[in-house]
Amino acid sequence: MTNGPQPRPLPSVLLLSLLPFAAWLIFRPFLSPVPPLPALHSSLGFSIIAFLAALYLVPALGGIMVKANLKGRDLLKTYDTPIPECLGLVCASIYILLLILFIPFPFTSWYKEHGSNISNSKPAEGISVPEFPHHLLALYLSSLLSLLMATMLGFLDDIFDIRWRYKLPIPIIASIPLLMVYYAEQGNTYVVVPLPLRPLLGRTLVNLGPLYYLYMSLLSTFSTNSINILAGINGSEVSQALIIALSVVLNDLLYLPWPVDFRIPLHLLGSQKEVEVGGVWAAGMAYGSRELVERHLFSLYFMLPLVGVCLGFMYHNWYVYPARVFPGDTFCYVTGMAFAVVGIQAHFSKTLLLFFLPQIFNFLLSCPQLFGLVPCPRHRVPRFDPNTNLLHPSKVLFEHPPSHASTVVLRALSLLGLTELTIHPNSGQILECTNLTILNVFLVRLGSMNEKKLVQVLICTQIAGSVLAFVVRYGLAGLVYDGDRR
Amino acid sequence: MTNGPQPRPLPSVLLLSLLPFAAWLIFRPFLSPVPPLPALHSSLGFSIIAFLAALYLVPALGGIMVKANLKGRDLLKTYDTPIPECLGLVCASIYILLLILFIPFPFTSWYKEHGSNISNSKPAEGISVPEFPHHLLALYLSSLLSLLMATMLGFLDDIFDIRWRYKLPIPIIASIPLLMVYYAEQGNTYVVVPLPLRPLLGRTLVNLGPLYYLYMSLLSTFSTNSINILAGINGSEVSQALIIALSVVLNDLLYLPWPVDFRIPLHLLGSQKEVEVGGVWAAGMAYGSRELVERHLFSLYFMLPLVGVCLGFMYHNWYVYPARVFPGDTFCYVTGMAFAVVGIQAHFSKTLLLFFLPQIFNFLLSCPQLFGLVPCPRHRVPRFDPNTNLLHPSKVLFEHPPSHASTVVLRALSLLGLTELTIHPNSGQILECTNLTILNVFLVRLGSMNEKKLVQVLICTQIAGSVLAFVVRYGLAGLVYDGDRR
Repeated sequence: MTNGPQPRPLPSVLLLSLLPFAAWLIFRPFLSPVPPLPALHSSLGFSIIAFLAALYLVPALGGIMVKANLKGRDLLKTYDTPIPECLGLVCASIYILLLILFIPFPFTSWYKEHGSNISNSKPAEGISVPEFPHHLLALYLSSLLSLLMATMLGFLDDIFDIRWRYKLPIPIIASIPLLMVYYAEQGNTYVVVPLPLRPLLGRTLVNLGPLYYLYMSLLSTFSTNSINILAGINGSEVSQALIIALSVVLNDLLYLPWPVDFRIPLHLLGSQKEVEVGGVWAAGMAYGSRELVERHLFSLYFMLPLVGVCLGFMYHNWYVYPARVFPGDTFCYVTGMAFAVVGIQAHFSKTLLLFFLPQIFNFLLSCPQLFGLVPCPRHRVPRFDPNTNLLHPSKVLFEHPPSHASTVVLRALSLLGLTELTIHPNSGQILECTNLTILNVFLVRLGSMNEKKLVQVLICTQIAGSVLAFVVRYGLAGLVYDGDRR
Repeated sequence: MTNGPQPRPLPSVLLLSLLPFAAWLIFRPFLSPVPPLPALHSSLGFSIIAFLAALYLVPALGGIMVKANLKGRDLLKTYDTPIPECLGLVCASIYILLLILFIPFPFTSWYKEHGSNISNSKPAEGISVPEFPHHLLALYLSSLLSLLMATMLGFLDDIFDIRWRYKLPIPIIASIPLLMVYYAEQGNTYVVVPLPLRPLLGRTLVNLGPLYYLYMSLLSTFSTNSINILAGINGSEVSQALIIALSVVLNDLLYLPWPVDFRIPLHLLGSQKEVEVGGVWAAGMAYGSRELVERHLFSLYFMLPLVGVCLGFMYHNWYVYPARVFPGDTFCYVTGMAFAVVGIQAHFSKTLLLFFLPQIFNFLLSCPQLFGLVPCPRHRVPRFDPNTNLLHPSKVLFEHPPSHASTVVLRALSLLGLTELTIHPNSGQILECTNLTILNVFLVRLGSMNEKKLVQVLICTQIAGSVLAFVVRYGLAGLVYDGDRR
């Protein structure tokens, strides 16, 4: 047994140089000439603060977590030093607190237009100010409420260590504020019918009614749990979250009115027409819809600080490998809920799901274990060999002979190369199979490797998934949806 | 050492009879004839659910708290059995979850008027619905956000056991959502100047500007901490919260449009005129202001479920004396924040402070200890005598001779009968004094008594304080404020 890793000092020059820049960005809306999207500057400033806060607070508060018994052993290492667990709580607190401080900024342009006559002539009584974009504020607040509930529930999960099967539906509770506000505002429950189904249904829009609410709550459950089950090795949770967040940011940027004019050769990707990105306000891929720009701005306000927090946290969880801190369930709950929030509130849930391709694959692959067809041990992380420092696919032993259905499923998965079976030489009965996770699939297909390499493979897969998602969204989607494909 | 108290079974007839009644109340707005204030029925129904949930869930979840090491010894008892601590978290979760489920109900009357044409003709795109009272929704959501943050911070306080001096400003963080939304909406920062000060200032309204925000955050800090420092004996936190909540409810009811017509003989209390309560919509003490009715309805929506939760929790924390569960800091944070929220959002913070008279007294009395003039031990609860089962005033010993200032303050408090000093017979130097809390004052003035009796004295004082508050608010306030005194 050797000692665990020591925290590494941070280059303080980062702090010194970035803080004034962040402050300048935050207060940019109050300096003239006012930029066309003033709040976006502030959001970027807050994101830098989020990055710095995560970078410095995560190691600083690690000790407190260990004291409160929130610590874990790194299962894939030789040392026994307790690693502080549940640092996702710190990330979530930074993230939510900064989002709360950001509340007034999206309305700066409104103050400019209406601010002066309010402060002078407003009557003493009055809960409401006329014409204020309260609906945007309500949207923002309900999202924050869901994020905060996700944090709370994730933290309770970390404290009380809720069993796997019971905690699956927990994110539904966190999505209730979203649903209630959506219902209170009598939000739109229509969806566009894909072209091939239109002759069948005889219409272009279909009202899903209560099913729409079910869809929304399932989306938040999926995005939360799918990150949570693709976990277990240093940096896996945070790298997934970071890449998905960056993909959402990239997608949002396409809809913004860029001051420069450029074209994306989408016809190369299979689209029927070129897409012009740029021009004046309400240009970009928003095709003149101010509402679409507002939605994607909303998404950016939630995603940019998340990118900041993830980057700061990733430094301690992966970049200075091995991990000095663990994220805990709180991290997965908050990031998952943040993605669900932007997908739902900014109305691009289908696009969002495309960024979850590796997670969807991992979830589908896990189903036989999640639903009891194949035994599911408490930990499905790859097996660590302390002598070679390499990870090997972890295996699950069948204590009872597998049922007929299990055998068929496992043989099919084995044929696809997604699991490795150990078969009794005489009876042909399955004795063992590798655990059904994407991490084990990597190890089965690419051979054993060390932990850092495995996360790099995961990161590459996630990036490849996002590239594919963009191709599908802006290339192939034209085959099943017409119009501007909002 | 004897064994601690066993949980007592609950009369299940309560559950059976109240549940259908609560369900009927909740769905009352959808049954015709629709009552004039439909959401109030639903709120009452949710409050009954809150009561039942607290009554049944608090003992059920006590074991889980003990398992997660959230337990404490009752300092004023002879047995050592660990009592589950931090059950305020369960209360807060019930309270907030029900408030979230209640979100659509305040808008039922709006759906009746506008609902039909939305579901038919609404375009497929669109984040916003025109004319919807989004400002009310934003108000409601920001309040929920503050409550949830208070829960989170209270729970963190319970887990990490933050030191007394550091945790004083924590509620300020929870009030940030309130402040930010108030700022985002450019809320009113004017206050009415009391009559005697008007000649001095030369105006009837004065703009406090940033000071108003300071006032709001200090209010939430005060209401939270003042309940927290008047704690330590079974039932003290919950009985305070219950009586304050009931006082706020009573005050709100005065402003509602009552279907019956009655008069309050306010001239007996020193007011210049009689106040008519009752009549049609927008009558009551709201004097025809629909906005005032809306504000007090808002307050009722938050207070009624709080009353329900407090009643249910009180059963286990005091009524089946001794306490089977402890509230933890979470309970004080959430109730304190709930009071701050209604005081700020419904604009009756001055009236609210009047309901905190015993807390204000306790806070002022505690100041010499809080600010270091007199030594402050970790616990200031009365001293328990296991032989007689009585509580005696607890004393603090001066390790160093008290400073001149301390001596003057303590002698003054002793003259007023608020502390008992032990004085060196020769030098006249103060050797000991009783801890400066209202509970010790009761014991000094009324003699030693048992714990249950002491809480009863506290409850009576709190009720007397509320009666005095109503006299001051509706009697004496006429002397310093004119008009309708909203």
